[in-house]
Amino acid sequence: MQAQEIKRQLQAFLSGAEIIEADDAFLLDQRRRYRGRADWVVQPASVENVQHVMRFCFEHGIAVTPQGGNTGLCGAAVPDGGLLLSLSRLNRIRSISLADNAITVDAGAVLQNVQQAAAEAGRLFPLSLASEGSCQIGGNIACNAGGLNVLRYGTMRDLVLGLEVVLPNGELISHLPPLHKNTTGYDLRHLFIGSEGTLGIITGASLKLFAQPQTTETAWVGVATISQAVALLTLMQAEFAERLCSFELVSRFALDLSADFSKIAGPVDAPWHVLLELTDSVARDDLGDLLAEFLVAHGFDNAVLAQSESERQNLWTLRENISASQRNLGASIKHDIAVPIERVAEFVERCAPALQTAFAGIQIVVFGHLGDGSLHYNTFLPGVLGNEVYQYEDAVNTIVYENVLACAGTIAAEHGIGQVKNQWLPRVRSEVEIALMRAIKAELDPGNLLNANKLLP
Amino acid sequence: MQAQEIKRQLQAFLSGAEIIEADDAFLLDQRRRYRGRADWVVQPASVENVQHVMRFCFEHGIAVTPQGGNTGLCGAAVPDGGLLLSLSRLNRIRSISLADNAITVDAGAVLQNVQQAAAEAGRLFPLSLASEGSCQIGGNIACNAGGLNVLRYGTMRDLVLGLEVVLPNGELISHLPPLHKNTTGYDLRHLFIGSEGTLGIITGASLKLFAQPQTTETAWVGVATISQAVALLTLMQAEFAERLCSFELVSRFALDLSADFSKIAGPVDAPWHVLLELTDSVARDDLGDLLAEFLVAHGFDNAVLAQSESERQNLWTLRENISASQRNLGASIKHDIAVPIERVAEFVERCAPALQTAFAGIQIVVFGHLGDGSLHYNTFLPGVLGNEVYQYEDAVNTIVYENVLACAGTIAAEHGIGQVKNQWLPRVRSEVEIALMRAIKAELDPGNLLNANKLLP
Ligand SMILES: Cc1cc2nc3c(=O)[nH]c(=O)nc-3n(C[C@H](O)[C@H](O)[C@H](O)COP(=O)(O)OP(=O)(O)OC[C@H]3O[C@@H](n4cnc5c(N)ncnc54)[C@H](O)[C@@H]3O)c2cc1C
Ligand SMILES: Cc1cc2nc3c(=O)[nH]c(=O)nc-3n(C[C@H](O)[C@H](O)[C@H](O)COP(=O)(O)OP(=O)(O)OC[C@H]3O[C@@H](n4cnc5c(N)ncnc54)[C@H](O)[C@@H]3O)c2cc1C
Repeated sequence: MQAQEIKRQLQAFLSGAEIIEADDAFLLDQRRRYRGRADWVVQPASVENVQHVMRFCFEHGIAVTPQGGNTGLCGAAVPDGGLLLSLSRLNRIRSISLADNAITVDAGAVLQNVQQAAAEAGRLFPLSLASEGSCQIGGNIACNAGGLNVLRYGTMRDLVLGLEVVLPNGELISHLPPLHKNTTGYDLRHLFIGSEGTLGIITGASLKLFAQPQTTETAWVGVATISQAVALLTLMQAEFAERLCSFELVSRFALDLSADFSKIAGPVDAPWHVLLELTDSVARDDLGDLLAEFLVAHGFDNAVLAQSESERQNLWTLRENISASQRNLGASIKHDIAVPIERVAEFVERCAPALQTAFAGIQIVVFGHLGDGSLHYNTFLPGVLGNEVYQYEDAVNTIVYENVLACAGTIAAEHGIGQVKNQWLPRVRSEVEIALMRAIKAELDPGNLLNANKLLP
Repeated sequence: MQAQEIKRQLQAFLSGAEIIEADDAFLLDQRRRYRGRADWVVQPASVENVQHVMRFCFEHGIAVTPQGGNTGLCGAAVPDGGLLLSLSRLNRIRSISLADNAITVDAGAVLQNVQQAAAEAGRLFPLSLASEGSCQIGGNIACNAGGLNVLRYGTMRDLVLGLEVVLPNGELISHLPPLHKNTTGYDLRHLFIGSEGTLGIITGASLKLFAQPQTTETAWVGVATISQAVALLTLMQAEFAERLCSFELVSRFALDLSADFSKIAGPVDAPWHVLLELTDSVARDDLGDLLAEFLVAHGFDNAVLAQSESERQNLWTLRENISASQRNLGASIKHDIAVPIERVAEFVERCAPALQTAFAGIQIVVFGHLGDGSLHYNTFLPGVLGNEVYQYEDAVNTIVYENVLACAGTIAAEHGIGQVKNQWLPRVRSEVEIALMRAIKAELDPGNLLNANKLLP
């Protein structure tokens, strides 16, 4: 169907303002790597509208790509013709139940607004990403987002109690009441979580809430090896359990870059660094002492405890500025990987020499959420500028991913597959798994209209 | 194929001792309600053996029913001809990684043995059920078991990091390394969790471990209404967060029955009762005082705190003996339901009068895990004995389930669907959901050989 005719017919059941021309805000991905195309951007303001659009596209064989905040990092929200379905106007906080510790929201609600609504009700919604000011709950669910608080609260998958989804044919699946126990047939909810917009349009979700922290204690600890950092993590989990909510690993090289950039002195000198944080829902003035005694008792005395909120902010600034500070190294190829925590040290020890052999002078910035096994593993090729770097991507990826797989890890910890990694999927999922995924996709989307060519190879 | 011929051919690749005759230990369900039939019980001792058996059955169109400890309560493990595949000999603890807070086990490992292995490593595996001495990890996963610790640690679904599954055609899907973050395509793991043995044979799993509690404080609180109990729950979750690990509701009638039976005086007098417990991984001698002050400050002063382990045991005995004590009321129809916690009071207020109108003199014993919204809702018809009670099952279920559904709840909180509730599935899952479930089943098990006639209607 012609673009103008699509618009004319859509207008018959949607108000005109909802159908706009696609510009780069919608067509270009966050990393400015992929530019897609779309006849129109459709922005429904009700679930019924989403159903109408999907039914219409299903009947007429029109492609649809759902998009949230367009902050995704694997090109999964870039359209390839047809309609771009933006959830931005479907952004209400629907309800909060304190008894159920749950919040129910539209999928287009911006993550930060959901965090705020929870805070206003005296609760914590713990998902936290640097993109939280623009990414949406639907996008977080579709990507199974991770972020800063996974160690304690899990990924988005662990935070979803119920979903409302419009299927490619316009039918609705809705299970929003916040049930903490329910075992009635195959769990389809978890199929949609992490499906990157290929199985249905998420329109609403009920999410878990938690108590707000009243006490926070933050420490920076220097260690000689990654194995020592892992030993500290293990001891702390046994002692402090859920209180341990951050356990970040930083290499000396990463700290030096960030300290320079931030004009904040590195807190301690060591080959490897850990930034860790304890929180407690009970107001406690002895948690800091407990932590200090614990570190000394176990021989981790090359450490600094934040004595004030501003000292705490400085420690976190050092961690958060790593990304910005490394830009001076040039263009980079970044990796979003995880391995079992037990094998992080092994991975780092095998991968660096392999890369250095293949690419003389390569620089590697290693940091990440050691507490959940995921690493930012960023590589910088000397003298390579801008998009030129993508020439080397395959070669670098191959070395990194082979080492990840040799350590029983994953090539996509939290950013998803999208169009960046779908050719790698057959290396991490078997033929029979991919066949089952295809069967699920075909059952829901027989015309392959919904975000085709993403995720599946 | 003739039974003797099946045995002869199986023996070609399995050792003889693994193929035995089926007796009531395997054929009769826990509630002695269903007696199945099977040519043979096969007990493989290796994953490869399971693959051989499945491939053989797939090729020859032989039905297979997986069975763990046979403690399930919905008739899901009762075979209907063909082979009964018992996992009992596949019962090793494979490995523990303290760094990853994870344990990897064979699916036939008995739950209690897994708890013990975790404890020996200084960790907690939190799933806990009255059947833990005989139920198996594979059965717990296949049913998505719940039990006593769901409020803090979630159901079995929340505890599974990775699975190893033999498919109906004998192929293996294996993702056991304990990755806390991994987003590589549709999450098939969650399809197998809760699939009641209809999609594949679970042969291994990696499971989350937690810190062991060092401090435990237990209280019994009398309240005037269920709403007051819910208010207390809400306050406590905000204050004590994950420390709150039990929050049980008991009606006066249930307490009276149990107090009589247990020869332990009821701790307080009130229309409704709450048994709650806090635990902490840090040894703390002030948690009891904190709890006592908290209860008084919020006006919950009809309360008793356990002052010793034996006082604590008495409180728990009162809760645990409800099941045994109610048997004097006669034959019962029991329900395994959950509603949003916000609506538990509404459910109880609507359902009791409806049942009393339909069945004069009906007695209702209400207790359950209020902290996760699930209720044991047990009904006793005056003068009805033994299996006679099943005559009234449909009528009672209809009233209870209609009220559950009116309160946005679930008819199967933790015991599953099996053959007891599959006719009800179309009331709680839509046509399009059931069609998707059937498509998934057909893709993996085109011959409908694996636990046919369970779960799906
Ligand atoms: C500065 C920065 C920091 C980041 N940090 C992290 C981090 O720490 N952890 C992390 O996991 N990610 C991180 N990300 C990646 C990204 O923010 C997250 O993945 C986020 O969850 C994407 O949400 P979105 O609304 O922007 O989704 P989009 O980018 O719009 O879409 C992502 C995918 O979801 C689909 N989708 C979106 N909405 C829906 C819907 N309603 N229904 C169905 N499908 C839908 C799209 O089709 C696409 O496949 C970061 C990104 C940036 C730019
Ligand atoms: C006294 C008592 C108390 C109980 N308390 C609770 C409770 O508090 N919470 C709760 O949730 N349940 C409870 N149950 C029910 C039951 O114990 C649990 O559901 C348990 O998880 C079943 O495990 P099992 O090994 O006995 O499974 P089985 O009864 O043998 O099988 C149950 C289902 O799982 C399938 N299955 C078993 N093993 C596998 C495998 N390896 N691969 C694939 N499918 C498999 C079977 O085919 C069947 O469909 C209780 C039962 C009893 C008798």
